[in-house]
Amino acid sequence: MRADQSPSRIEDLARQLHAVLRERTDITVATAESLTGGGICAALTSVAGSSAYVMGGVVAYSNAVKAGVLGVPADTLKNPGAVSEPTARAMAEGARRLLGTTFAVASTGIAGPDGGTARKPVGRVYLAVAGPAGTTVEEHTFPGDRAAVIAASIEGALRLLRAGVADRLGSA
Amino acid sequence: MRADQSPSRIEDLARQLHAVLRERTDITVATAESLTGGGICAALTSVAGSSAYVMGGVVAYSNAVKAGVLGVPADTLKNPGAVSEPTARAMAEGARRLLGTTFAVASTGIAGPDGGTARKPVGRVYLAVAGPAGTTVEEHTFPGDRAAVIAASIEGALRLLRAGVADRLGSA
Repeated sequence: MRADQSPSRIEDLARQLHAVLRERTDITVATAESLTGGGICAALTSVAGSSAYVMGGVVAYSNAVKAGVLGVPADTLKNPGAVSEPTARAMAEGARRLLGTTFAVASTGIAGPDGGTARKPVGRVYLAVAGPAGTTVEEHTFPGDRAAVIAASIEGALRLLRAGVADRLGSA
Repeated sequence: MRADQSPSRIEDLARQLHAVLRERTDITVATAESLTGGGICAALTSVAGSSAYVMGGVVAYSNAVKAGVLGVPADTLKNPGAVSEPTARAMAEGARRLLGTTFAVASTGIAGPDGGTARKPVGRVYLAVAGPAGTTVEEHTFPGDRAAVIAASIEGALRLLRAGVADRLGSA
């Protein structure tokens, strides 16, 4: 990650999550990552003591791993495709099921520079968080180059996880 | 990752691997990560076009994921333990089997600042690469703080993968 791509915002979010989750032995977290390639989980585990709530994750870069390990339906991967709201949802729910966690956060998108289309441009990203109250999915179109899109996706995923955890704590 | 922790060496290694693997449609790669938390796979996929050979990976931060997803034997996790040569070997072989790749590279270790013992100090890391010719494991004791140990582990894992790929190409 380059110095101009907000590592400090990502670090801040990971530390905020840590401050909340270190106190809650009943809440655990997993990740299911495509375009971020492991960066969401790496950000979470950069904080000392994160092993108390981070169980792990799956990097599902290929469609074979999305289907075979996370259980994303092959039909969904064909249409609407790997970069879509239903795929992000199925990735998060699949990781939550596979790793047996309270929450799982997922990313799928087009980091570029290649792979964009008129309907799905470079920077189009779907983020999802699955938890006890259901699954929330966000669509984004992030600007910038490959590294910027990946960093923005990691940051967005941590924000989404933070919101899911906050909802859980508010309703508990 | 901080600016003083050799992101450029990690990036250089990922680009060197890309230069070799982009030409070889018969070689695919997976990761199985504990202390690096997804950082090995994130480094590999930071390079545009890496989806041609990176299938994905598993972040097995908890022992439950090491056993349940990667198939590391429960006996091995008890003794000699999660941070050991046999666990690194089983993680790499488990990811290679689960994701059906030519190579899988694994990391397990103690990033610190807590968790070290007299026999296994902070910085003790086992890295493994599993491939068609078998599995190679390295023991390291990396100096520095948590971020430095994680960065050195990512760099070491990419070097080990590069060596495994080079052997494969040399014998092909």
